[in-house]
Amino acid sequence: MKVRVWLAAAALLSAGAAQAQFQKPEDAVKYRQAAFTVMGAHFGRIGAMVQGRVPFDAKVAQENAALVVAMSKLPWAGFTPETEKLKSRTKPEAWMEMDKVRAGADKMVKAVAELEAATRTGNLDAVKKTFGDAAATCKACHDAYRE
Amino acid sequence: MKVRVWLAAAALLSAGAAQAQFQKPEDAVKYRQAAFTVMGAHFGRIGAMVQGRVPFDAKVAQENAALVVAMSKLPWAGFTPETEKLKSRTKPEAWMEMDKVRAGADKMVKAVAELEAATRTGNLDAVKKTFGDAAATCKACHDAYRE
Repeated sequence: MKVRVWLAAAALLSAGAAQAQFQKPEDAVKYRQAAFTVMGAHFGRIGAMVQGRVPFDAKVAQENAALVVAMSKLPWAGFTPETEKLKSRTKPEAWMEMDKVRAGADKMVKAVAELEAATRTGNLDAVKKTFGDAAATCKACHDAYRE
Repeated sequence: MKVRVWLAAAALLSAGAAQAQFQKPEDAVKYRQAAFTVMGAHFGRIGAMVQGRVPFDAKVAQENAALVVAMSKLPWAGFTPETEKLKSRTKPEAWMEMDKVRAGADKMVKAVAELEAATRTGNLDAVKKTFGDAAATCKACHDAYRE
């Protein structure tokens, strides 16, 4: 399912249908930002457990991780060429290195899937480890490509 | 799973923990709007098939419906009392009738689950019927509670 959605999105993009997914380029920007916002909120709830700010509850962590996994595949379809000049926090470098952005996205998608798998074990140490790894994939792209 | 997430969210709310989910009230508004944005985008992709603007593909419809179902449960946690006075398209009536808003949300969650079930049958007529029913639940709340 995970891979299928990713491939489906990639297929749409390569077929040039990405444009048709959004009525206006502004919609694509709004969509990708919204997906990041939802992802960040649920990632943060796992972070609160990892950091001990709220008690660890494996079931709640898993529910949040499942949402992070679902969101992790979405924003990329919103980086359409038509949106390059629109106002956003995306640095110009991202548009020049979209292959690296996609490789980074791929790493993140994989890392959050591993975090989700860890939440299923109910082992807090495994959740901490995979949460840290996933956070590092977020940071790598943010440092390089986000204002 | 569906019911569990919904109940978990409801439990968090009733325990007064919703506030703690967001660092600032502004974050709660941004979160609920983001969840609606992602939900609307994927609902719209099914709509494009229902209206014949893009060819019907049951698998793609099902993937979009699954995302709509996941998103349908999220925005409500963002309607915290602390956000009542913040700028958004939520009408004052919503805050006075939050029980009705929640009842409407419940109907919508149920309707999109039925849409998702219909996409699994691969029957376009069933998808059209349940899409229309789900759209009506969106419209009911938008008409009453959204500027």
